[in-house]
Amino acid sequence: MSEPLRFLVLHGPNLNLLGIREPDIYGRATLEDIDAELAAVAKAAGAEVQCFQSNHEGALIDRIHEALSWADGILINPGGLTHTSVSLRDALSGVALPVVEVHLSNLAAREEFRRTSLVSGVAVGVVSGFGATSYRLGLEALLAHVKR
Amino acid sequence: MSEPLRFLVLHGPNLNLLGIREPDIYGRATLEDIDAELAAVAKAAGAEVQCFQSNHEGALIDRIHEALSWADGILINPGGLTHTSVSLRDALSGVALPVVEVHLSNLAAREEFRRTSLVSGVAVGVVSGFGATSYRLGLEALLAHVKR
Amino acid sequence: MSEPLRFLVLHGPNLNLLGIREPDIYGRATLEDIDAELAAVAKAAGAEVQCFQSNHEGALIDRIHEALSWADGILINPGGLTHTSVSLRDALSGVALPVVEVHLSNLAAREEFRRTSLVSGVAVGVVSGFGATSYRLGLEALLAHVKR
Amino acid sequence: MSEPLRFLVLHGPNLNLLGIREPDIYGRATLEDIDAELAAVAKAAGAEVQCFQSNHEGALIDRIHEALSWADGILINPGGLTHTSVSLRDALSGVALPVVEVHLSNLAAREEFRRTSLVSGVAVGVVSGFGATSYRLGLEALLAHVKR
Amino acid sequence: MSEPLRFLVLHGPNLNLLGIREPDIYGRATLEDIDAELAAVAKAAGAEVQCFQSNHEGALIDRIHEALSWADGILINPGGLTHTSVSLRDALSGVALPVVEVHLSNLAAREEFRRTSLVSGVAVGVVSGFGATSYRLGLEALLAHVKR
Amino acid sequence: MSEPLRFLVLHGPNLNLLGIREPDIYGRATLEDIDAELAAVAKAAGAEVQCFQSNHEGALIDRIHEALSWADGILINPGGLTHTSVSLRDALSGVALPVVEVHLSNLAAREEFRRTSLVSGVAVGVVSGFGATSYRLGLEALLAHVKR
Amino acid sequence: MSEPLRFLVLHGPNLNLLGIREPDIYGRATLEDIDAELAAVAKAAGAEVQCFQSNHEGALIDRIHEALSWADGILINPGGLTHTSVSLRDALSGVALPVVEVHLSNLAAREEFRRTSLVSGVAVGVVSGFGATSYRLGLEALLAHVKR
Amino acid sequence: MSEPLRFLVLHGPNLNLLGIREPDIYGRATLEDIDAELAAVAKAAGAEVQCFQSNHEGALIDRIHEALSWADGILINPGGLTHTSVSLRDALSGVALPVVEVHLSNLAAREEFRRTSLVSGVAVGVVSGFGATSYRLGLEALLAHVKR
Amino acid sequence: MSEPLRFLVLHGPNLNLLGIREPDIYGRATLEDIDAELAAVAKAAGAEVQCFQSNHEGALIDRIHEALSWADGILINPGGLTHTSVSLRDALSGVALPVVEVHLSNLAAREEFRRTSLVSGVAVGVVSGFGATSYRLGLEALLAHVKR
Amino acid sequence: MSEPLRFLVLHGPNLNLLGIREPDIYGRATLEDIDAELAAVAKAAGAEVQCFQSNHEGALIDRIHEALSWADGILINPGGLTHTSVSLRDALSGVALPVVEVHLSNLAAREEFRRTSLVSGVAVGVVSGFGATSYRLGLEALLAHVKR
Amino acid sequence: MSEPLRFLVLHGPNLNLLGIREPDIYGRATLEDIDAELAAVAKAAGAEVQCFQSNHEGALIDRIHEALSWADGILINPGGLTHTSVSLRDALSGVALPVVEVHLSNLAAREEFRRTSLVSGVAVGVVSGFGATSYRLGLEALLAHVKR
Amino acid sequence: MSEPLRFLVLHGPNLNLLGIREPDIYGRATLEDIDAELAAVAKAAGAEVQCFQSNHEGALIDRIHEALSWADGILINPGGLTHTSVSLRDALSGVALPVVEVHLSNLAAREEFRRTSLVSGVAVGVVSGFGATSYRLGLEALLAHVKR
Repeated sequence: MSEPLRFLVLHGPNLNLLGIREPDIYGRATLEDIDAELAAVAKAAGAEVQCFQSNHEGALIDRIHEALSWADGILINPGGLTHTSVSLRDALSGVALPVVEVHLSNLAAREEFRRTSLVSGVAVGVVSGFGATSYRLGLEALLAHVKR
Repeated sequence: MSEPLRFLVLHGPNLNLLGIREPDIYGRATLEDIDAELAAVAKAAGAEVQCFQSNHEGALIDRIHEALSWADGILINPGGLTHTSVSLRDALSGVALPVVEVHLSNLAAREEFRRTSLVSGVAVGVVSGFGATSYRLGLEALLAHVKR
Repeated sequence: MSEPLRFLVLHGPNLNLLGIREPDIYGRATLEDIDAELAAVAKAAGAEVQCFQSNHEGALIDRIHEALSWADGILINPGGLTHTSVSLRDALSGVALPVVEVHLSNLAAREEFRRTSLVSGVAVGVVSGFGATSYRLGLEALLAHVKR
Repeated sequence: MSEPLRFLVLHGPNLNLLGIREPDIYGRATLEDIDAELAAVAKAAGAEVQCFQSNHEGALIDRIHEALSWADGILINPGGLTHTSVSLRDALSGVALPVVEVHLSNLAAREEFRRTSLVSGVAVGVVSGFGATSYRLGLEALLAHVKR
Repeated sequence: MSEPLRFLVLHGPNLNLLGIREPDIYGRATLEDIDAELAAVAKAAGAEVQCFQSNHEGALIDRIHEALSWADGILINPGGLTHTSVSLRDALSGVALPVVEVHLSNLAAREEFRRTSLVSGVAVGVVSGFGATSYRLGLEALLAHVKR
Repeated sequence: MSEPLRFLVLHGPNLNLLGIREPDIYGRATLEDIDAELAAVAKAAGAEVQCFQSNHEGALIDRIHEALSWADGILINPGGLTHTSVSLRDALSGVALPVVEVHLSNLAAREEFRRTSLVSGVAVGVVSGFGATSYRLGLEALLAHVKR
Repeated sequence: MSEPLRFLVLHGPNLNLLGIREPDIYGRATLEDIDAELAAVAKAAGAEVQCFQSNHEGALIDRIHEALSWADGILINPGGLTHTSVSLRDALSGVALPVVEVHLSNLAAREEFRRTSLVSGVAVGVVSGFGATSYRLGLEALLAHVKR
Repeated sequence: MSEPLRFLVLHGPNLNLLGIREPDIYGRATLEDIDAELAAVAKAAGAEVQCFQSNHEGALIDRIHEALSWADGILINPGGLTHTSVSLRDALSGVALPVVEVHLSNLAAREEFRRTSLVSGVAVGVVSGFGATSYRLGLEALLAHVKR
Repeated sequence: MSEPLRFLVLHGPNLNLLGIREPDIYGRATLEDIDAELAAVAKAAGAEVQCFQSNHEGALIDRIHEALSWADGILINPGGLTHTSVSLRDALSGVALPVVEVHLSNLAAREEFRRTSLVSGVAVGVVSGFGATSYRLGLEALLAHVKR
Repeated sequence: MSEPLRFLVLHGPNLNLLGIREPDIYGRATLEDIDAELAAVAKAAGAEVQCFQSNHEGALIDRIHEALSWADGILINPGGLTHTSVSLRDALSGVALPVVEVHLSNLAAREEFRRTSLVSGVAVGVVSGFGATSYRLGLEALLAHVKR
Repeated sequence: MSEPLRFLVLHGPNLNLLGIREPDIYGRATLEDIDAELAAVAKAAGAEVQCFQSNHEGALIDRIHEALSWADGILINPGGLTHTSVSLRDALSGVALPVVEVHLSNLAAREEFRRTSLVSGVAVGVVSGFGATSYRLGLEALLAHVKR
Repeated sequence: MSEPLRFLVLHGPNLNLLGIREPDIYGRATLEDIDAELAAVAKAAGAEVQCFQSNHEGALIDRIHEALSWADGILINPGGLTHTSVSLRDALSGVALPVVEVHLSNLAAREEFRRTSLVSGVAVGVVSGFGATSYRLGLEALLAHVKR
């Protein structure tokens, strides 16, 4: 394990719209707000995060592959790819790093097609429904998992 | 509402093959022909269109996000992404612009997996089955909707 | 092909309630308004329409059969029969005239049982979601199809 | 609300056979017996009923539409149309009158295809399984609902 | 049992188009041809047939009810109602006469939605796929059944 | 049959919250109100009711078993157990007493998982959707059934 | 086409039990009775039949292959293989002879797993439900088909 | 909101076996360890927790009802009831307190029947897969939610 | 392994009605008869049984947990909980004792919802359909399994 | 009933591999061992068994038919035919002898396609999961059933 | 591993018709042609093949069992048994030899019921769609697998 | 057809991880190893290959479009896109070049969601399960197909 612990934070498609898009569902924090909070949480734990957002499935997969050489774990909100991307799942399972999946909204209370996640099956665990707080808790879970 | 009305026209994957690809299903008009017709229809109505085609889901989503700052509506033929892309749906719903969905062929008369659209649920309406004419009618519908 | 072009316009069950029934979903135009607009559109294109509404599946089928002897195409909003009537589908396919299917509301955004159409499989194409405008666009599509 | 309260009672296909058809399932009371009992119950409550039976879906829909101008509610046993008629559901929901659905037999204990009702979703409530008594209780429920 | 044996022959929606509609599927015999052949077959067996076609489900049900007072059995081709009409099934089961179901085409080799019949469950048996011959064989089967 | 007629009234889980819990769906009457009304209805008919509520499936089943020795029928609102308890169904079917099932809300208009009842298959009939009135009508139905 | 017409009659598994096995469902005629009647019908039409029963799917397939060299058509009651044998279907389709499928009982009124036939999709048509009479009618249908 | 904040912590069936039962899936911490950690987390935030475990669905529901009078929110690991108890869901939704659902294991990576939760639809959010850490994070999420 | 071998025998909901409830399905032996026979069989094998019946899922789970400290195996007829209780399954799998599942009736010949067992997946094996004899054979199977 | 009681024991496809094939699932006893044990059990009960194994469905069916003339019951492990052979089911139901079905492994804990049995519906009962012991218990169950 | 390598080549039902049966789908090579090519390929690799075709599932299973004593692997085209035979799957899995599955046609482009294979789950891999070439490539794959 | 034959070889998402990612499933050969082997095989046959890997669906589609102008066929391992990309399917079908689909692992023995391929329906055939050998055999199949 590298020192200090380093984590890749991935935001999937449309998360760059945070604070703009459907605030009733997703809250008013922007992605910059969230990344700043995660950096602070990581720092307090003697760790580091690298954050990346893309609307391109392929770009997200490329980043996951690169993480093989430097990261101790991945925190990911796959956005709409959660439900549709076998390739993203394969990338996460291929690099064999611990993965924590987070969602801003409670998927169980939304449309039927949002109720299954292809990512969950290769994740350590999932945090969903708490808005920006989901990310912070997810990072704490990842830290606890990696330190164990 | 901006003046004159301005619309984003999006063509999803493989629509650059129009006129080449399976003309029995999709007709012989090329994408350039369609874009030119749409520009003429728009002009006659005192409006403008910006047309964009990509085989990359992410590039389409990026364009939808950019439309937030300038467009009055979106006319989209999502191609094969119609049936598979939650991310595209989320992008359209996220920017909260009126959307009209068009298809060249009558999806109801094709393979089972083409019978459901993830986009329709966030669109004003749908026009399908009339070849290049679907686009023209779709733009008219969008104009009528926005003017109302 | 007869001269001038002549089309049968069919309105299925409950469409006589238009303007009264659930205006949030179906709009405020009455059936008379729609028929008048269609007559005007047809006339402008040198064509004619005959309009007929019934709450009786059998009466609609009878009219479709009669159209064999005079019509160049059929514009139909099958209403609730859209999802349940194999007989209506068989009538349309039996007379072998070009059919365009229209819906006032966007069926994809409503109850599950409204998401499949038995008529679409024998139609040239479908226009749905634009209120009374769906009819006008549908007639334009039918005119374009028949003239081709 | 009109004075006295007036209700439309609708009997769907085959209910004219009551007393003849499968008495083990449907009981021995005839439709006349039931209509008479309902008239008596209504009268005792200072209300009136108009009863109508038809084997024609369209005729039933026509009557529902007419009820818009005079009735305070509808008591309906849709018979076999319960499970198949979106048009009947649309008619009931279109006139926006309170609806109570009744069935002679307990549908839950019969064939699989009798277990779902398209009407229930637009009804206030349902009474099923008590033979002719279902009608009386249904009318009481409708009276209670309308008076509230 | 009455003397001579008398049977009701029912033709469902669109069968009046026989000889015109999709002859590759349904053959070139007209309904008059078929009725004439059935009358001849019946006569040769010392029986009689009454033939009736309607595109109205309700009219077919009315005829089935009337048959209670005179017929010894029913030969029916329910057309598109085969797959959708619980009311027709209830009418046939309600009058408790022996029923034979016939189809011109082999439903098993056509669209998915034509593969189930609501009528078969209340019929003695089914003959399908032999064009006009299906009717003749069906009547023979009904004669054999009733005489037994 | 005992004299006077005696009935067990069972209220399943969460019905003790009546008047507090989601009044838009369930109404404002408390369980005490309902029990009092049922006692009055029973008394007027020369009968008696014993009412019991529990959040414990096992306690409800125990009561059903005890009813074998004294009751002439059971009126039950199984609450959330309606959809999940085979054991409750077996208890009701095991004691072989007439059962009437009631629901405050119209289950057909709620979540998918509330649309099937394991109890209905062993009940005489069902009353649902009329709030507290469902109970009263259910008891009337039970009285009518037992007296027949 | 050979002269005289010659047909293979195949009886699938368990049909040797006819007259013994569940007579309420299958009737009391033995297989010998049926074969004799078919021979008589064939003879009257100037044709011949060869009859064969086996409980072995492979033996039935072998016979179908041999029929390539001599038969003008196949009359088959596939018994329990109706619902399960893709190989039997492939054999019938492979030899490209006209096939008529018959069943003693009305499969639509029996267990769910008897409601689909793998054979029907490669048959001219089907006769079911008339006991031994199904065979006779099936042979008549095959004769009519081949002579056309 | 009461001062200090007070929360009910509920452990469903079999969670008393923690530390004994399938440690590969559920970890080695006992329920006492978890409750002690939650008390410490709550105390640090100026809040309090009351913890309760039961193998009886009814006892859990009773506790939820009691919480109406004192608690500011509920943290629940419903155990096996997660997937089967509509009554538990109704209890949580009935008291209208904020609910956070936690699971020790990652349900998405286990048997099919563990993939749906009846509780999630009425919860603010869900934390699953992090062993005893799921509880701590869940309580933090609940605190954050209630304070907002 | 303790000496002598000791087994917990659990009877689920409604089995206390044995001999009373639906004897055509479940036979006429009472639970006392069955427990006595099991005690005799155990004794003959130098083993002991403790028998317990409850209509409360929680009470059954409590007993399973207690068995951890004394039993060598569990013989269980879960009654209606067979098909619905994940918690019971988890309890059995949590204590990691060998389990044999028995049923009085042959579940495969009853209602659809009785065809799956949540318990079977964590049992050594299953005996069903032989009435009281199922218990005796189940105990013999458990003895044989434990002795191996 | 013949004297002494005589039973047919049938082993389906691949059971001749017993002791060789996947011993972790099926155990190490050979078919000869099992047949010998069954003969001993039968003899002790004053009965006799005839054992037969075949990989040919047709051969198994032939034997079942022959058993009509001499056997008092059938003990069968249908192997892979359990899940696929309607013909085997029909043979067992056709001879109307009591049938007990046995399986070496616990099918409920294996692949999805092994979870349904076409044979169970016509059997008295089933014993599964106890290796060779399943056969012995199955024979005891059959003896008990026949003697009753 | 024996020297030289020896393989069993199995052809399922109807493959003896090759060259005759539906050449558009299956090509014009006969089974003798294919067997000869396989022998040549094997010989070139210093190996041997034994080829066997049967329309009898049992005969194919018998051959698979015999292969236990001499073969190094099995090349199989199961024909119609691909989709229906659990017994064939069990035979292949029972002998624990490497299996390669081949198909002449591309099953994915044919009827729905040809899209699943019970054999694939116990095979090393599958080659389909290349006509006779599928066999040659399959043998090469088997050789490569066994030599590794 | 061009001279020499030229083929596009496409590797979908995550295949760049080959030799790193889950070697138990995918083997230890790297993508470079595979490309080199394919070049050698092609050269030996007087052909050429161009190889391309991308994690971006859009980039793969772009390459397929470009192949229209130079390639004689396409060999593709679509990786995770196999199961989810209608757009990839449309691209392959749009250019109307022969396609062979290959997979390293045997998809039939993995997770449920890997069992269907959207690509197979537009491919000549499929080779799966043989690790790197799948590619070599796939290229041989493509060569054979194109030369025919």
